[in-house]
Amino acid sequence: MKSMTITALREAYLSNKTTPADVLADIRERSKKYADHNIWIHALSDTELQPYLERLEHKPIDSLPLWGIPFAVKDNIDLAQVPTTAGCEAFAYTPQDNAKVVQQLIDAGAIPVGKTNLDQFATGLNGTRSPFGECHNAFNPDYISGGSSSGSAVAVALGLASFSLGTDTAGSGRVPACFNNLVGLKPSRGLLSATGLVPACRSLDCISIFALNSSDANAVLACAEGYDAADGYSRENTYSNRARHFGERTGPLTFGVIPEAQLKFFGDKGYESAYRKTLDVLKNAGITLKEIDYAPFDEAARLLYEGPWVSERYIAIEELITTNPDALLPVIRTIIEPGGEPKAVDLFRAEYRLEALKRICAAPLEDIDCVLTPTAGRLFTIAELLEEPIKRNSELGYYTNFMNLLDMASVAVPTTFTDDGLPFGVTLAGPALSDRALLSIAQRIQSIIPLPYGIEKTTPEANSYAPVSDQNYIDVAVCG
Amino acid sequence: MKSMTITALREAYLSNKTTPADVLADIRERSKKYADHNIWIHALSDTELQPYLERLEHKPIDSLPLWGIPFAVKDNIDLAQVPTTAGCEAFAYTPQDNAKVVQQLIDAGAIPVGKTNLDQFATGLNGTRSPFGECHNAFNPDYISGGSSSGSAVAVALGLASFSLGTDTAGSGRVPACFNNLVGLKPSRGLLSATGLVPACRSLDCISIFALNSSDANAVLACAEGYDAADGYSRENTYSNRARHFGERTGPLTFGVIPEAQLKFFGDKGYESAYRKTLDVLKNAGITLKEIDYAPFDEAARLLYEGPWVSERYIAIEELITTNPDALLPVIRTIIEPGGEPKAVDLFRAEYRLEALKRICAAPLEDIDCVLTPTAGRLFTIAELLEEPIKRNSELGYYTNFMNLLDMASVAVPTTFTDDGLPFGVTLAGPALSDRALLSIAQRIQSIIPLPYGIEKTTPEANSYAPVSDQNYIDVAVCG
Repeated sequence: MKSMTITALREAYLSNKTTPADVLADIRERSKKYADHNIWIHALSDTELQPYLERLEHKPIDSLPLWGIPFAVKDNIDLAQVPTTAGCEAFAYTPQDNAKVVQQLIDAGAIPVGKTNLDQFATGLNGTRSPFGECHNAFNPDYISGGSSSGSAVAVALGLASFSLGTDTAGSGRVPACFNNLVGLKPSRGLLSATGLVPACRSLDCISIFALNSSDANAVLACAEGYDAADGYSRENTYSNRARHFGERTGPLTFGVIPEAQLKFFGDKGYESAYRKTLDVLKNAGITLKEIDYAPFDEAARLLYEGPWVSERYIAIEELITTNPDALLPVIRTIIEPGGEPKAVDLFRAEYRLEALKRICAAPLEDIDCVLTPTAGRLFTIAELLEEPIKRNSELGYYTNFMNLLDMASVAVPTTFTDDGLPFGVTLAGPALSDRALLSIAQRIQSIIPLPYGIEKTTPEANSYAPVSDQNYIDVAVCG
Repeated sequence: MKSMTITALREAYLSNKTTPADVLADIRERSKKYADHNIWIHALSDTELQPYLERLEHKPIDSLPLWGIPFAVKDNIDLAQVPTTAGCEAFAYTPQDNAKVVQQLIDAGAIPVGKTNLDQFATGLNGTRSPFGECHNAFNPDYISGGSSSGSAVAVALGLASFSLGTDTAGSGRVPACFNNLVGLKPSRGLLSATGLVPACRSLDCISIFALNSSDANAVLACAEGYDAADGYSRENTYSNRARHFGERTGPLTFGVIPEAQLKFFGDKGYESAYRKTLDVLKNAGITLKEIDYAPFDEAARLLYEGPWVSERYIAIEELITTNPDALLPVIRTIIEPGGEPKAVDLFRAEYRLEALKRICAAPLEDIDCVLTPTAGRLFTIAELLEEPIKRNSELGYYTNFMNLLDMASVAVPTTFTDDGLPFGVTLAGPALSDRALLSIAQRIQSIIPLPYGIEKTTPEANSYAPVSDQNYIDVAVCG
């Protein structure tokens, strides 16, 4: 398999080594052997792909930043003329228009490959909660893919798309990145328009980006972002957070890390060891680690599912859940149905506490470059997850659930593999509109720890301080 | 009566024409004749005032910006060692500490004169909803004072304080300014700390400032503002909104005004005529008036009382209302008791709509310097108000209720008197952190329309373009 990074694919197009039609044919061919992974809810047919190819024909490659780059779309985001199911056929509708973000990517030359499987209504972090089948991990099909953006992550990891769109309300754009050796960007809330997105928690939802590396994530973000007056939660970007401010972060770095007593790996020795190994490598590379109290972050995290925000999930599907509740998977119904109950007084009280927690959690950020946590504490097998589907799902969110409520940006970045060959990664987090700063730090980590991308078998050259555009890729076999 | 502006009083102190002790004695003497106005819930005794006088003794006048300046405090804001009643004796407590804003003002040399009457729990815009008696208008005791910051406004208008603190959630810092010929600043939410304030709607409440003119309002704001990490709704000021950016706004100005069909004066011909007269004077002074659609502002306004925000008022007094509801005035109980009912789904839906309205209402602000509305459409007599106490109170908020929900700053500024000698004024409104821009426009209006301050009988010289510090006061008799 050729590298599917945007850089590699673009070079191949520019040097006439391949064409978008060939790349898409190859993707369709390779997709067949992953049918049991349950990645796609709808893969575009040749006929459906044709217009996307045709519209590129008379446009120079270098006129469009994503010319001919294939991408996957989580099936709670609208792709025109293709059903949006949100993982529930009874809910499905066929939109006339693309989601704003999808339209911007297509306008930039990208080609949608298909709509991907997800935990129903984006409610889950594990990838098993879908009537379209459990989504399987790209590295070992016995393991969960992570969710809710399960198919979007696995598609990129397996080289069936160069990047993909997920969504992230509680960690859905980060946990599957960790489990499938990808960069997962949960942008600052409002940086990407939510027009054309089926809401989970509308006040918190972010369309997220899976990519093979942080440079690709930045390139996609540059095309996907933009203020949208039609989206009440949209916001203007700042000067210092623009695409041109992405680049490998050099110089001294201090990461805020969780004290030993507050770490949780839920019995996963492989992940525990992978995390410690990651910290050792970063320390050896000269990065300072500073412990910060995780308690207020954890308190914010628990507000999300234990507090009244589940009422937003209820609103999003109120008509369905009140008229046809059996259309929902039982686990989803169990979670969302109580969302009609909380009082406004409960929500105001939770909002007051959240505002206080924002202040408390912001204080330690003053002295560090970003927070660094494991992206997830444990990678479960599908069987393990299904034994205790609610408890273990909530364990998956221990390091992710606070982020959206606290209005933070974050980037999941792969850092190592367990002895069993399973991917592990960490999440970098900072205040809203720190996206480019975080991606630049992720780039530094990827330079310090050069891993192969997705399931690729080759690794980029370790090149700690070179600018992104000077990166060279050499074929090096990596064991493990 | 000597002018009580900060500038005048400071000049009198610096030239040894008077002392704080003399000023306070004079205030106490003059207060007696206004006993029937029901201004004070607690006026500080000589003994209580003594420490405030003593601490100034060895401090040079010019070392403190508010040295010896008397101010009044609405009785839902803590003044140490004096009961805070919020207009309800069953609720009262005696705080050990000053509210953060009060402390800052005292640190700047200001002297608290007393705690002022208010509509119970700051729930009202009229000044009649108090067990401490209806507060009477400074110009004609048959008329309402406006509320809920009734005593704070009347005290300044009558020269019993140079400035005062009110609060503003729905218009409580503006309506009484209009009815008593004062400048009323509702600062941007979070610019003044709410630590030590009894909440009405905690997510919306602002401590507000009544002053005799906009220069004084700016001087008080400079001492009162400041980020407070302990207040979850506090926020940092911006460079362009700092005190030094106050000054009379010169050059072309465009005000957004309400189209004829959307104006409401509720039968008050005097106010209707006063408003039209104001617009004529401003137009004649070269200011451009541009109509903007008021419908989305009005929709936001109606969310405040018709929507779930009343749940915040319920939270603020939940213990009292659930254990001793008879301690509330019947009208207050009628309003707040249903606040326990709304669902979180109602609040989320209202928040979604509000976010959309923020976008819609922000759009016309791009082309204007500020919005200008009547501050209130009608000034009722106390008897009229009590005939229909809920309906007429809500009429008082027609031009004010949207401001806090839309996160706007605003300044009420007097512009004329009715033929009956009753004060009328307009409100200038802009986006959050436009406080100094609005005060600077208010200063321009006060130069165009030089009115006497409060019930003073003299008017400052019309001096349209002079800096504030060059203003001269001359004794000119004003009729009407």
